[in-house]
Amino acid sequence: MTVRRLSVYTRCLLLLEEDGVKTISSQELADRFSLNSAQVRKDLAYFGEFGVRGIGYYVSGLKAELQRILGLDREWQVALVGFGNLGSALFHYKGFARQGFRISAVFDDDPTKWDKAVDGVAILPLRDLPREAKARNLQLAIVAVPAESAQSVIEALAASGIKAILNFAPGRIKVSKDTRLKNVDLSIELEALSFYLAQATR
Amino acid sequence: MTVRRLSVYTRCLLLLEEDGVKTISSQELADRFSLNSAQVRKDLAYFGEFGVRGIGYYVSGLKAELQRILGLDREWQVALVGFGNLGSALFHYKGFARQGFRISAVFDDDPTKWDKAVDGVAILPLRDLPREAKARNLQLAIVAVPAESAQSVIEALAASGIKAILNFAPGRIKVSKDTRLKNVDLSIELEALSFYLAQATR
Repeated sequence: MTVRRLSVYTRCLLLLEEDGVKTISSQELADRFSLNSAQVRKDLAYFGEFGVRGIGYYVSGLKAELQRILGLDREWQVALVGFGNLGSALFHYKGFARQGFRISAVFDDDPTKWDKAVDGVAILPLRDLPREAKARNLQLAIVAVPAESAQSVIEALAASGIKAILNFAPGRIKVSKDTRLKNVDLSIELEALSFYLAQATR
Repeated sequence: MTVRRLSVYTRCLLLLEEDGVKTISSQELADRFSLNSAQVRKDLAYFGEFGVRGIGYYVSGLKAELQRILGLDREWQVALVGFGNLGSALFHYKGFARQGFRISAVFDDDPTKWDKAVDGVAILPLRDLPREAKARNLQLAIVAVPAESAQSVIEALAASGIKAILNFAPGRIKVSKDTRLKNVDLSIELEALSFYLAQATR
């Protein structure tokens, strides 16, 4: 099962919990959130212990189990590198904190930003990364720097022991095998829409 | 096949083309980009006409076909609503234009932004949306407004005939059946990393 689908199910279960729903069948879950019902049935069968024969799954129990698998049962300390428009938008993005991702250090190599703090978080030069990574137990990083800086920034992160990196900079990045790099490509999201429009006008 | 996988294959084929690769087997494609080889084989079998027995697929031919299916064989005129930090970052995001998505109108209800233009694109009040949608043939929209404005903005877009919408605002949005809304949840991307870290430390 892909991790993405686990995330999607977790969100659906959170919404159901908010609505006071206690149990749900895989078919209802699929219908309610327009998911592929065969896929949902297959995926959730794996979590049979949270199911009740003939009724479905316990919403809260299944949600908690998925959160545990996704590592969302704890708080992660996250480094943000790059505090331009995108970095600033990501810093203020509410969704991260809600899932337990806490941006507790911001790095930017523009000296005019160093004397500022955002919501109590200092903006630091990249050379402070090794020290801060250790002091703050930073394990995840979000990279929002220009394309030409991304490779060196990601190398510096890995050298500081931050081996799980979400990168918004375009271009090809090389990392060693022990670093987990995830590149976000926002145009993929638009392509799902252009696909739909292209089909509709064909 | 999910549209997302079509997008991923298209990106892989673009990179191969840049590297001068003419043909590739599904196994090589999977190995090179760390994809699930059974899945790639199954997905690409659908495009058998671009294959050569015993060799694989023609990179350029297959890429062009996938682009056509995804609607990337044309230029789309895109409206951007919300020109705060995130909107500004999205406006300057290089990835959109590369895939044929052209942000040709920006809307924001902050009057202090109305006299400005970004890279030759005017920033307009939302009340100009119906007129501009028609005049500029806007078919897609990107929404980067605060959560509390998202529902009304998305309704205004749909009313102006823009029925394919990429939404970055959090929260639940209701749309009519003929509107295609895609919500971007950036924390899903981080969860793939926390999943990996959680597995590694378990």
